[in-house]
Amino acid sequence: MKDVTISEVEPFIKTDPPVRLVLRRAKDRETVVDVKGIEIGGREIVVMAGPCAVESEEQLLSIARAVKASGARILRGGAFKPRTSPYSFQGLKEEGLKLLDLARTETGLAVVTEVMDARHLDVVCAHTDILQVGSRNMQNFTLLEEVGKCRKPVLLKRGMSATLDEYLQAAEYLMKGGNDQVILCERGIRTFETSTRNTLDLNAVPMLKRHTHLPVIVDPSHGTGHWWMVPRLASAAIAVGADGLLVEVHCHPESALSDGQQSLTPPDFDRMMKTIRAVAAAVGRQ
Amino acid sequence: MKDVTISEVEPFIKTDPPVRLVLRRAKDRETVVDVKGIEIGGREIVVMAGPCAVESEEQLLSIARAVKASGARILRGGAFKPRTSPYSFQGLKEEGLKLLDLARTETGLAVVTEVMDARHLDVVCAHTDILQVGSRNMQNFTLLEEVGKCRKPVLLKRGMSATLDEYLQAAEYLMKGGNDQVILCERGIRTFETSTRNTLDLNAVPMLKRHTHLPVIVDPSHGTGHWWMVPRLASAAIAVGADGLLVEVHCHPESALSDGQQSLTPPDFDRMMKTIRAVAAAVGRQ
Amino acid sequence: MKDVTISEVEPFIKTDPPVRLVLRRAKDRETVVDVKGIEIGGREIVVMAGPCAVESEEQLLSIARAVKASGARILRGGAFKPRTSPYSFQGLKEEGLKLLDLARTETGLAVVTEVMDARHLDVVCAHTDILQVGSRNMQNFTLLEEVGKCRKPVLLKRGMSATLDEYLQAAEYLMKGGNDQVILCERGIRTFETSTRNTLDLNAVPMLKRHTHLPVIVDPSHGTGHWWMVPRLASAAIAVGADGLLVEVHCHPESALSDGQQSLTPPDFDRMMKTIRAVAAAVGRQ
Amino acid sequence: MKDVTISEVEPFIKTDPPVRLVLRRAKDRETVVDVKGIEIGGREIVVMAGPCAVESEEQLLSIARAVKASGARILRGGAFKPRTSPYSFQGLKEEGLKLLDLARTETGLAVVTEVMDARHLDVVCAHTDILQVGSRNMQNFTLLEEVGKCRKPVLLKRGMSATLDEYLQAAEYLMKGGNDQVILCERGIRTFETSTRNTLDLNAVPMLKRHTHLPVIVDPSHGTGHWWMVPRLASAAIAVGADGLLVEVHCHPESALSDGQQSLTPPDFDRMMKTIRAVAAAVGRQ
Repeated sequence: MKDVTISEVEPFIKTDPPVRLVLRRAKDRETVVDVKGIEIGGREIVVMAGPCAVESEEQLLSIARAVKASGARILRGGAFKPRTSPYSFQGLKEEGLKLLDLARTETGLAVVTEVMDARHLDVVCAHTDILQVGSRNMQNFTLLEEVGKCRKPVLLKRGMSATLDEYLQAAEYLMKGGNDQVILCERGIRTFETSTRNTLDLNAVPMLKRHTHLPVIVDPSHGTGHWWMVPRLASAAIAVGADGLLVEVHCHPESALSDGQQSLTPPDFDRMMKTIRAVAAAVGRQ
Repeated sequence: MKDVTISEVEPFIKTDPPVRLVLRRAKDRETVVDVKGIEIGGREIVVMAGPCAVESEEQLLSIARAVKASGARILRGGAFKPRTSPYSFQGLKEEGLKLLDLARTETGLAVVTEVMDARHLDVVCAHTDILQVGSRNMQNFTLLEEVGKCRKPVLLKRGMSATLDEYLQAAEYLMKGGNDQVILCERGIRTFETSTRNTLDLNAVPMLKRHTHLPVIVDPSHGTGHWWMVPRLASAAIAVGADGLLVEVHCHPESALSDGQQSLTPPDFDRMMKTIRAVAAAVGRQ
Repeated sequence: MKDVTISEVEPFIKTDPPVRLVLRRAKDRETVVDVKGIEIGGREIVVMAGPCAVESEEQLLSIARAVKASGARILRGGAFKPRTSPYSFQGLKEEGLKLLDLARTETGLAVVTEVMDARHLDVVCAHTDILQVGSRNMQNFTLLEEVGKCRKPVLLKRGMSATLDEYLQAAEYLMKGGNDQVILCERGIRTFETSTRNTLDLNAVPMLKRHTHLPVIVDPSHGTGHWWMVPRLASAAIAVGADGLLVEVHCHPESALSDGQQSLTPPDFDRMMKTIRAVAAAVGRQ
Repeated sequence: MKDVTISEVEPFIKTDPPVRLVLRRAKDRETVVDVKGIEIGGREIVVMAGPCAVESEEQLLSIARAVKASGARILRGGAFKPRTSPYSFQGLKEEGLKLLDLARTETGLAVVTEVMDARHLDVVCAHTDILQVGSRNMQNFTLLEEVGKCRKPVLLKRGMSATLDEYLQAAEYLMKGGNDQVILCERGIRTFETSTRNTLDLNAVPMLKRHTHLPVIVDPSHGTGHWWMVPRLASAAIAVGADGLLVEVHCHPESALSDGQQSLTPPDFDRMMKTIRAVAAAVGRQ
């Protein structure tokens, strides 16, 4: 049980000799990350949507067109896929990156994709607008250091069992390297509950925003693991104050190579977008 | 990772010989709990608000009038208090119950208060409109059996580390006893994260509502432990589909005998009510 | 990360105005609980063994004779059973207590059995040598208060998600009532790991013993959920410094009415006893 | 709650098309990892000890000589250090590797040190006898793939919130690459308990050994976070069936650059070694 007054609001931040760059005390305004004119952390809610993994040209383009039509601004899609089992589909890799390029050209959407290895940084940077660092790599410190040297926006996902302080320390690695274009993303934490894939921790959104000037988005797809829960939790994320969403969409979830259970179809995604517009207006966002 | 199709939506329900009364398959419509004309589980969002503990006549009446003015329908207040330490304030007990009676008469609000012991059931029943069974007693099975024999609405809070299946089994104890006026309440679960008192599990709301016909409300006060987070998580709870809220309010949180850190002042509560009205409208509720 | 020096060894104990009776600073020697001449918390390791639930005279007596022959000093057996589902076997209740009496007379073993409800205290006290308060009731404070008034040794099991500080506070309820014959029991905590029923927290044994003078035993049956793991974890419990064990034994685990998966057969139990004797000697215990 | 019979012992292993190389069914005997004549996974318990981080020649050599004198066979010491904060000491890097070489030459101990980045593999391999992959990198799949191509024993630590199935899948990445010299290491998991740094999961040892032919060791230093608990948990680890230990030792813990709180002094380490020899004998090991 913690703070009642403003002066007590940092119970989980231990003092470090240097002022941590991610903290509010280090900066007097909100960070707004600019991705080719799309502002993340401003008044507008930004939705990133697309398949878990890039599977084929047809798959990617059909999804990209659909999510754009519904109002998404950024296309997500994994080319390099971290998978629990070495025998699962590992992504199309460079071929996938090229398809993301193609989808960007065709639709005008910006692109976010994951980089798993510092040795892939150049090639991934050449094809993406936002670099994603995944949950399993949140404390891959040498990767964070290299990504910190890039001048490209970064989407840093929270680790599965990372405390919020550890999460902000991981973002500090990026900012210490000189990269101040960092977007945080709550995506569910590991708990004892087994009926959902993870427990989406929406407490994290206001707690992070109280401590840091960085934008915070939410991934309700991984946060629940069930497509039918995604629109509900997406609405909640907007209501709690998130700056955006990261959502998995697939035209044929039942045959997706990964994460089909948690992927919305384009019609479901379109309905979700209508609802979150209304919720955003109710809390003073667009 | 679980279900894609409707037929697979019950991954965490193990089959039991009798049809469990809490499950949707046992009943063809939603349960709406009627508390002196206030319907919980209907189209209207119902807000229960008040102090953690009843402390005095003046304290209780001032809070009761304030929350009523802002739109709360039900007054919460603890007379018997379960406390981690035996040296903490344990509640005013029967004196507290009488003050709740007084507040009901003065304001017309209905009342919810906790029963900790089967031996207190008669006296608590005589003074309350809803019996609360607290998190620490969610698996106090003999208490559940006795409460199940009452013909009084019950607010059953989720245990701190109860799976949703265990939670529904606890509700089954109440229903098996013949009491079908059961309200569920998500109030945060215990995780590794220490910056918040608990991790509010909003995934639980749509998951519970998929499996049970019972109404589900949310307690953002215990779910966060920080008063300044409560309005945000209250909005999220409404957006995710909750049927109501349970919120701690105190006119002087800094001198509250318990849970001051997570109690809203009446002006903050009033602002919160305005916001959740807008959010409720955005998701088709009142 | 915590203490290096003795002066820092109580990081999780918050200061309370009264000296907490459970803490070492309140007493200058170890508490040794005397159960009809059997000393728990002394140099000898004490093993409590028996079925999860008392099922019949034949079942109970055959197990009691077997565990006595292998060296157990105390017979465990549930008459009142807390069960997750109301449709599961709830125990033989008073009939079960009478069978425990019979087994005591026949074998000379002392008896430990659970009390779930303050209203049963008199009858349970009349038939048992040690009162057990189960994990689900660790924070059933009114039960703790009543048990605290008895002059009968108490075995207080740790709650499934109780911190060690909360656990010691629960024991304080017993001691504050005047009952200083309290035995603590680590029985596994709830974590994300699903391959075992619980995660046995053997760290708890030295941490508890550093802070309290009360004896600490371990329940490897609930702590693992798998009979074939029990002997291994029992050895580990002795090696880590536990004062005793609580172990489930059944002559026919495959037809046990509860917890068969985690029950040892008498021959397996006998082998386990031989191993733990050797381990006890290795760490200077009997 | 799970298996009673052998045929049911793999409840957490989902079937994969290829036979997983880490599983017992893929190999008919135990894997014994040979490190310059030291056998890990055989009858003898192997102790790896040394400082958290290599700090200086004098620091490392004094510790190395001390742990050797007490019976350790392998020297641990971090040159590349993964640290939560970018402002904490990050290790001596290549200079640290050279000091490990020197300590090996001086003492004849084998050496284990962590590799954090595939780009450092050549230089780390040139100076170590065992490559350590740390907890934060347990699912750094591209690192696992590269380490899998080395012909050097690997110590793979369990991730902070990795299930045992995920852990075995991570080991599969190594084995699929052709490296069958893999040692597993339980080092504590993240739970709600805050009085210890982690919760050492000794259940993991028999559960892993039931499913895999790989050797399993235990790190009681990280598993507890308190030096005074380490000898107790080390004894428990041997009693539960571990094949070895990984222990932090420092001559001046109070001035250590990292993890001083959990480091034993050489005299404490020496006492610990005497105790575990007795425990090992009690469970039929050397």
